[in-house]
Amino acid sequence: MDHLDALRATVGAAQVLTGADALPWETDWRERYRGRALAVVRPGTTDEVAAVVRLCAQAGLPVIPQGGNTGLCGGATPDDSGRAVILSLQRLNRVRGIDTDNDTMEVEAGCVLQSVQQAAREAGRLFPLSLAAEGSCTIGGNLATNAGGTQVLRYGNMRELTLGLEVVTAQGDVWHGLRGLRKDNTGYDLRDLFIGSEGTLGVITAATLKLHPLPVARCTALLALDSIEAGIAMLGRARAGLGASLTGFELMAGNCLQDVVRCFPQQRLPFEGPSADRPWYALLELSDSESEAHARERFEVVVGEAIEAGVVLDAVIAESMAQSHALWHLRESIPLAEKESGKSIKHDVSIPVSRMAEFVLGTNAALQAAFPGIRHVIFGHLGDGNLHYNVARGPDWAEGRLLACQDAVYELVHDRVHAVGGSISAEHGVGQLKRDVLPRYKDPVEMALMHRIKAALDPQGIMNPGKVLAG
Amino acid sequence: MDHLDALRATVGAAQVLTGADALPWETDWRERYRGRALAVVRPGTTDEVAAVVRLCAQAGLPVIPQGGNTGLCGGATPDDSGRAVILSLQRLNRVRGIDTDNDTMEVEAGCVLQSVQQAAREAGRLFPLSLAAEGSCTIGGNLATNAGGTQVLRYGNMRELTLGLEVVTAQGDVWHGLRGLRKDNTGYDLRDLFIGSEGTLGVITAATLKLHPLPVARCTALLALDSIEAGIAMLGRARAGLGASLTGFELMAGNCLQDVVRCFPQQRLPFEGPSADRPWYALLELSDSESEAHARERFEVVVGEAIEAGVVLDAVIAESMAQSHALWHLRESIPLAEKESGKSIKHDVSIPVSRMAEFVLGTNAALQAAFPGIRHVIFGHLGDGNLHYNVARGPDWAEGRLLACQDAVYELVHDRVHAVGGSISAEHGVGQLKRDVLPRYKDPVEMALMHRIKAALDPQGIMNPGKVLAG
Repeated sequence: MDHLDALRATVGAAQVLTGADALPWETDWRERYRGRALAVVRPGTTDEVAAVVRLCAQAGLPVIPQGGNTGLCGGATPDDSGRAVILSLQRLNRVRGIDTDNDTMEVEAGCVLQSVQQAAREAGRLFPLSLAAEGSCTIGGNLATNAGGTQVLRYGNMRELTLGLEVVTAQGDVWHGLRGLRKDNTGYDLRDLFIGSEGTLGVITAATLKLHPLPVARCTALLALDSIEAGIAMLGRARAGLGASLTGFELMAGNCLQDVVRCFPQQRLPFEGPSADRPWYALLELSDSESEAHARERFEVVVGEAIEAGVVLDAVIAESMAQSHALWHLRESIPLAEKESGKSIKHDVSIPVSRMAEFVLGTNAALQAAFPGIRHVIFGHLGDGNLHYNVARGPDWAEGRLLACQDAVYELVHDRVHAVGGSISAEHGVGQLKRDVLPRYKDPVEMALMHRIKAALDPQGIMNPGKVLAG
Repeated sequence: MDHLDALRATVGAAQVLTGADALPWETDWRERYRGRALAVVRPGTTDEVAAVVRLCAQAGLPVIPQGGNTGLCGGATPDDSGRAVILSLQRLNRVRGIDTDNDTMEVEAGCVLQSVQQAAREAGRLFPLSLAAEGSCTIGGNLATNAGGTQVLRYGNMRELTLGLEVVTAQGDVWHGLRGLRKDNTGYDLRDLFIGSEGTLGVITAATLKLHPLPVARCTALLALDSIEAGIAMLGRARAGLGASLTGFELMAGNCLQDVVRCFPQQRLPFEGPSADRPWYALLELSDSESEAHARERFEVVVGEAIEAGVVLDAVIAESMAQSHALWHLRESIPLAEKESGKSIKHDVSIPVSRMAEFVLGTNAALQAAFPGIRHVIFGHLGDGNLHYNVARGPDWAEGRLLACQDAVYELVHDRVHAVGGSISAEHGVGQLKRDVLPRYKDPVEMALMHRIKAALDPQGIMNPGKVLAG
């Protein structure tokens, strides 16, 4: 029996796709990476996943786990050898249960993030992970990449939202680790080893997730600032004055918001006069367990004090949910406005908050010196030190010029990130995109430890080869 | 040059203790475990730690990392072969720096927990880890055992409080992983692998810790309850109504508090009549970012609604910090009162909150059936599902009878913990105490993964042998 027949015997012929049928799985959604697989296999149960992995282990076939295929680093795309088996988890999409007394839910890897948020909300709870791809990304992919998003400041990354895992090992065994416990000190933390390992150590098939209370009210404020330092000072004030009610703190360069209102005339900045033309803005979100009135009152106190102290130049506190949404919409429209002006070079980096100003000003200057006229598109989650530090072609640049300097820009920016103790991948992972630059920035001892772990858990090297670590 | 001379040449003769000088390090503080070491070595820098480990690796000598030696499971005590080197981290006790803009601090492993709390407070920040041994335990030990304590409900275990690590590997290399980043998705999570590994994979020499804002006010309430189910219902109400301001939720059996007031007549229950004689009590702590008045008002609303709904029978909300302290003091005195009535058998377990009542009632009944008259001493952190489920000898039992049934009691309780999806070690770790029962309760796939990781990172098996995993 050849490999395809064996796979068909394991999951059913209808769930083994080849040739043209496999094409959508062989490329990432942005079509930056393209590979060729022996087949796409779509198991329906954890036992079927284990059987497929055992079969691949026996045959020495690479296994490429894939969720919603919304990643940004090519982590779920095979190479072009045609030998790999793409293991789609999409059919493992059940919410197995919600335990409101324990504030946990058990979900399969193929559940779409939005459906998990929805199931939690229907049970009167919040599952806080929230990111742009939530309508199609899956929990398995969120776990494999330790996804972040807009609520990390308060609730943490996917790692902090997860209590237990079910994992198929590289040998095709099932680790039943679906514990719903907040305290469990019985040995090595395998859960966090699999989370963020991008499918290179095993296949996550299900997880026990933490739930939080639904906030009673949310309120948003937009602040005009004259510097990054003022943003950092305001972050400190907001943390002290709002405590854990502070659920979002986004920083945006003024030109980003001006691009938004230029591209999308139905949107507008809620400021006039000089406040509409400041170099920086911050968007704050407060989630309150009392009332909308209390949320607004807290904002008024904390923002009012900051204005009096000269930290904030001007501020708008949303008067309604509709106005809150409109303010968030400005922030969420930045990537769309960015796209309107052509391709850009994107950096998903994190920086210690205390070195943010030094990083931005120094890197801006270095880029202008090397590539005069290049445009900066800078926004991000200041509360987490996570910056989307992007650059676009200058107004008078020819179409291809930006692409031509892409590698040099990456290196300049990443070198500066490294110099201030930052990370070259804050929330998107490594995949294929950053695999080869990783050793440039990682401690060699850390690289060696990672290789030891990879060899220990996947000695055959069949799990998502060529991702995170080079062969 | 023999091994002792080589050690003396590495750290200085004064920092190598042998014979009677080494005795205090060769036994744990409760004197349950006793071993014999070749020497106690007290390096003063990370490089000296690395040199000692390299020397031990070359000579094949076991390395036993030790912090404050306050552990409860024998995790820092050598065997009696006389070959092991106890590596005391106590001289690595500097706070290397505090970054208030980034809300982080960098500390060495030998810092005493209380001094870290103090340094954070002096910088206007909170380092929330808090536990009984805080005056002598060290950050290195807290990391090695992933310490918990009373603030986990809001702030998490040591794991959630740590951003970066500096580690000496089993080969004597230094991993410089002291990152102060909240988002960093560049490869495997080595940090969390070393945290909680009890010195069996390497030696943690320093850490970057997360800081939080200091609460403006704290308030405490004591509630009288007629059942565990009522406690769980109240926990849900407190989570929804107080949000992240809820920083403590302790459950105590009525007999525990009655023992406290009997043993320590200067303490008193703030209830009279039937409220002073309820089967269960809950102690709630609220940390507020506004004011004491606001904290009390929130408690009044949430507890008032619970009384109206019949969930809570009676309640006292502290009117002052002194009264808050007095209420906490009742809770903290339970272990002392327990000790007054002789030795007890202690279980540090965690249970899904939703199965807490089933576990307690079922286990109480099974223990009474097997050991008629045995006394239950039950209290713990209900918010984390962490119960100190202890038992003491019955009123008419002879002195030795409890000890005689100790192993049978452990097994009965741990089997029941396992049956409801709990953990046999919530916050104390495994050490020697629970090493041999671990395979009874752990998935064999998980045990095999742990052995693979141990072999990968410490192939010689020199790092704290005989702890967590059997040889």
